[in-house]
Amino acid sequence: MLDTIIVGGGMAGMTAALYCLRNNKKVLVIEKETIGGQISMSPKVENYPTIQQISGTELADLTFEQISNLGVQFEIETVEKIDKKDNVFTVKTNYNTYKAKSVILATGASPRRLGLKNEEKFIGHGIYFCAICDGPFFANKDVTVIGDANSAMQYALMLAGYCKTVTIITLFDKFFGEQNLKDAILKTSNIKIMHECKSISLDGDDELKSITFEKPDGTTFVHETNAAFVAIGQKPDNTFVQNLVEIDKAGYIVADEKCKTKTDGLFVAGDCRTKEIRQVATAVGDGATAATNACKYLNSLEV
Amino acid sequence: MLDTIIVGGGMAGMTAALYCLRNNKKVLVIEKETIGGQISMSPKVENYPTIQQISGTELADLTFEQISNLGVQFEIETVEKIDKKDNVFTVKTNYNTYKAKSVILATGASPRRLGLKNEEKFIGHGIYFCAICDGPFFANKDVTVIGDANSAMQYALMLAGYCKTVTIITLFDKFFGEQNLKDAILKTSNIKIMHECKSISLDGDDELKSITFEKPDGTTFVHETNAAFVAIGQKPDNTFVQNLVEIDKAGYIVADEKCKTKTDGLFVAGDCRTKEIRQVATAVGDGATAATNACKYLNSLEV
Repeated sequence: MLDTIIVGGGMAGMTAALYCLRNNKKVLVIEKETIGGQISMSPKVENYPTIQQISGTELADLTFEQISNLGVQFEIETVEKIDKKDNVFTVKTNYNTYKAKSVILATGASPRRLGLKNEEKFIGHGIYFCAICDGPFFANKDVTVIGDANSAMQYALMLAGYCKTVTIITLFDKFFGEQNLKDAILKTSNIKIMHECKSISLDGDDELKSITFEKPDGTTFVHETNAAFVAIGQKPDNTFVQNLVEIDKAGYIVADEKCKTKTDGLFVAGDCRTKEIRQVATAVGDGATAATNACKYLNSLEV
Repeated sequence: MLDTIIVGGGMAGMTAALYCLRNNKKVLVIEKETIGGQISMSPKVENYPTIQQISGTELADLTFEQISNLGVQFEIETVEKIDKKDNVFTVKTNYNTYKAKSVILATGASPRRLGLKNEEKFIGHGIYFCAICDGPFFANKDVTVIGDANSAMQYALMLAGYCKTVTIITLFDKFFGEQNLKDAILKTSNIKIMHECKSISLDGDDELKSITFEKPDGTTFVHETNAAFVAIGQKPDNTFVQNLVEIDKAGYIVADEKCKTKTDGLFVAGDCRTKEIRQVATAVGDGATAATNACKYLNSLEV
């Protein structure tokens, strides 16, 4: 019997493992794809405190090494179902079934893609999903934001503060979201707006050079850009655990900063929960909190 | 006119500076004592994700270097008063008066001391204030916890999971706090309880060797220990800003994980706000959140 199973091997999950392991708990981390999760898509990270510059993969590897040295069990499998009976969680994956006294969900979220050929290849090389993280690499340059709603408008305003120009491109004929953001966009002189443009292809060799858009009348045009920030939503993936947690309309697990779910012994950390700012810095905070509360829970069971 | 003044140069404040600077904001950090704040008291940190082992001072120095390279202004001064008028904050210190469009409070909290001679000298060398952080260095050893309430009981239970024995020493004749913790303490076989002991001296050369306690009848005894976890409360220091924020009974600034206060443009990050888990990992999360919200606020002002 394990003490804790952590679902997701991103920075939230690995931090939770670090805290549980240092509390002498027996920990299994189950990751379905990539060690590090979303951060491993970032070629350059400059906003993790203490580290001047590092690739996302290296950042994840350092943390993986840290928990490996403490004896973590780490499996690349996909969790399909979690059940709880008599204070024991049963976690079924595509290969195995595990049992544990507590579970921490750290499944993250993936940015929605444009759905174009070459898109994966250009991620980190012209296509970015986080203006807070990657915008500063394009200070005094011309950049593009793709998206119709609040996060796209916030990205555009943020980038306009230090980029030469920001072109914001929407699929529909207007913005959806807060009026004060719309007003701010209209009043910011270095933001250009292009409505009703559907992206149809990404071009370039190793780095993105241009995006081709289609207008409603079927005409197309080529928009040259070295940096396109895509803000068309995030896609969490928590349906496999909907029997044990509350999930909001967007698919996030409902929890506040205490990282507790409605099920005793089941905790949640990082991008997969309802929260405002999704960054590595906030993910590690959640990992520490969820793990500390999981350890308190485990200690109370052992009485 | 500055964009943001950050009060406190601990890990929360420095992370907030990092995020604001990367958003091209003009930032001043004002710290009253030590770069790094509370973490600089820890000789060995092993729970910061990505870094296997580091001293608290080095951890702080790396972050200070990171924000210095981005052009932070950093002053060692004590903030005495903050006022806001017409969207401008005036921050008065013991030496200067500064003006800024926004302020982030990251003043931290100090663990309450026993008030004994030699106490500062033994911090990190026998006297510890955080069992989550420093407990694991004493796995399979005999340790001591000093304190009468919830946090002392939680420390004792946590330490009992991997230490040989835990002696919990209280000033009064009983524990104050949650019944389930009291029950758990009584049922844990490697926890020894010693009530009504007042600590009167700390002894040892470079490392703590023993603590002398006094009983109510005036008799004294020497308790040998290499590690005493002192959990007699935290002391935040936010009275200088009580005109602009809500402060709870314990002295913390009332705010949730969005890091917003009741005053527009005034944010709060880290140990100084109401929260459950106070760790470097949660402090950097707060720094990122407070700064991102401060930048959104600044961008909305600039319309």
